[in-house]
Amino acid sequence: MRMFLMLRLFLVSLFIVFGTVSAKAQTDPLPSWNDGVPKKAIIELVGRVTKEGGPDFVPVPERIATFDNDGTLWCEQPFYVQMAFAFDRVKVMAPQHPEWKTKQPFKALLQGDVKTAATAGEKGLLAVIAATHSGMTVSQFEQEVRDWIKVARHPRFKRPYNELIYQPMVEVLNYLRANGFKTFIVSGGGVDFMRPWAPASYGIPPEQIVGSSGVIEFRLGKNGKPELFKTPKVQFIDDGPGKPVGISMSIGRQPIIAFGNSDGDLQMLQYTTAGSGVRLGLYVHHDDAEREYAYDRKSQIGRLDKGLDAAAKNGWPLISMKSDWKVIFPFEVK
Amino acid sequence: MRMFLMLRLFLVSLFIVFGTVSAKAQTDPLPSWNDGVPKKAIIELVGRVTKEGGPDFVPVPERIATFDNDGTLWCEQPFYVQMAFAFDRVKVMAPQHPEWKTKQPFKALLQGDVKTAATAGEKGLLAVIAATHSGMTVSQFEQEVRDWIKVARHPRFKRPYNELIYQPMVEVLNYLRANGFKTFIVSGGGVDFMRPWAPASYGIPPEQIVGSSGVIEFRLGKNGKPELFKTPKVQFIDDGPGKPVGISMSIGRQPIIAFGNSDGDLQMLQYTTAGSGVRLGLYVHHDDAEREYAYDRKSQIGRLDKGLDAAAKNGWPLISMKSDWKVIFPFEVK
Repeated sequence: MRMFLMLRLFLVSLFIVFGTVSAKAQTDPLPSWNDGVPKKAIIELVGRVTKEGGPDFVPVPERIATFDNDGTLWCEQPFYVQMAFAFDRVKVMAPQHPEWKTKQPFKALLQGDVKTAATAGEKGLLAVIAATHSGMTVSQFEQEVRDWIKVARHPRFKRPYNELIYQPMVEVLNYLRANGFKTFIVSGGGVDFMRPWAPASYGIPPEQIVGSSGVIEFRLGKNGKPELFKTPKVQFIDDGPGKPVGISMSIGRQPIIAFGNSDGDLQMLQYTTAGSGVRLGLYVHHDDAEREYAYDRKSQIGRLDKGLDAAAKNGWPLISMKSDWKVIFPFEVK
Repeated sequence: MRMFLMLRLFLVSLFIVFGTVSAKAQTDPLPSWNDGVPKKAIIELVGRVTKEGGPDFVPVPERIATFDNDGTLWCEQPFYVQMAFAFDRVKVMAPQHPEWKTKQPFKALLQGDVKTAATAGEKGLLAVIAATHSGMTVSQFEQEVRDWIKVARHPRFKRPYNELIYQPMVEVLNYLRANGFKTFIVSGGGVDFMRPWAPASYGIPPEQIVGSSGVIEFRLGKNGKPELFKTPKVQFIDDGPGKPVGISMSIGRQPIIAFGNSDGDLQMLQYTTAGSGVRLGLYVHHDDAEREYAYDRKSQIGRLDKGLDAAAKNGWPLISMKSDWKVIFPFEVK
């Protein structure tokens, strides 16, 4: 009797050590995905690069996965979330800036007229970003983002923006990490804007978030305390051709798999899929006006035009939100 | 008899799971360190931040440790290793640059006259760096570094430069990692210069190496293949006040512990030790002319002057190479 007990304890302890691996293989790692080309391609890639002794095996440290953020991991319509933040900041900061009452696009924003503000074009929007993203320390700015994201609501879904992340993509992140991948965000958005909320939403730590940045100045403030001060100057734009550059500078390895949704991700997908061995680039295609938004070649935000042609030419799977995803957002999961 | 065998197997399997932890605690984690203030301070900090429920406990993801490279992790005398690389590259590249025969500091370098070359000052040296660190792709450059470090030898120790890393610091890196710290290099040196050899030397992956960088251009080369092209323009100087900035941009968390050896590390130590909770900044002090080099306030390379005053004022432990380290280099370990 005791012997059986011992045997059982021994088997249980073995199960603790080795059991979880085989149990995992039996459940669907991507339950919010319908069976289709993208799901199959992701699972096949993971199977190939993790198969020890196989021709496509990739050692764990080299398993790098990169994800665009806006439109790939969370909703970017009807405007980039960071722009919504900037517009709200204009209102908060207005008392310190009487000149904004007559200066576009600030004047329009203060009147709640986003349409007129948008006519200021890229230059006008950059002026808004510069004005609202500088003049404070990095930690003050991050606190502003944290405070804002708690109270701001998406105009259509009436929920906090960080609840509008894509459940199927969260599953991909978890699935890749469970298979030894290190997951990175590589976004055109500001790195300081993402770090306050993205780690809790995606399970990606701050040091694995690559993004655009302004010039930061080191200063000794009051009492000789060091401060990192945000200036309005641009340090690095992590978009388009800047994405592979950002990956090279911050990661130093070519990704095995990369996800994007717009022309701003084209070069990241080109760079990723040009690597030797098995590689995969995928585009999230916003084709679900009912559950989210439908846009591609002609959208001002998240335009997918050249990328759509490149996907067809290179055989990059298009992830149809409409047909590949059972749910869009985590709150839809029963 | 079988029961005892089962019992033994059970105990062995338990030992496999739990045994290594307690075994580790009993051995000296820093065997190449003499007992002294720095060793005690490092071990005390690790004990405090890892003590669950303790007042100074830090969760694993926030355990960030940053290390300068030149003079902190490896030998930087009689000249920065990257300069030795650049000088050798001038000779290799000279046939493509007939103008260098008459242009300083290239002319002097081609004649093996480093002293005259040095009179060109910082501007001259930056011209040498720009000329030797641009005009190729990132991967071509990394291959050049890999090839060079295999054959180049230190003028005094007659060994490859990557054998001249500091054994006691390698032990600190391992010790911190074994206690849940993520270790980063934060160096004034070029990030592309470090990544080809530093991961194998220090156990630090490419994505945890922060350094200076030139502007990289994304191009579609022959056959439409993406290339990352190194231009001579400066992107970011990760030195002095640039170090906390580089930490903020690339890591996004304030380190718990930081190691440096020169005034170029002063702001990193200020930034690190200004954080809330328990923090530690340490300076490696080169005071061992016999086994390595002795230099501080007046050295052109790795000057430690303001930093020496700051260390005294702030109580940052000085690591005496002479009295704190039993050995300097790994090849001295018996």
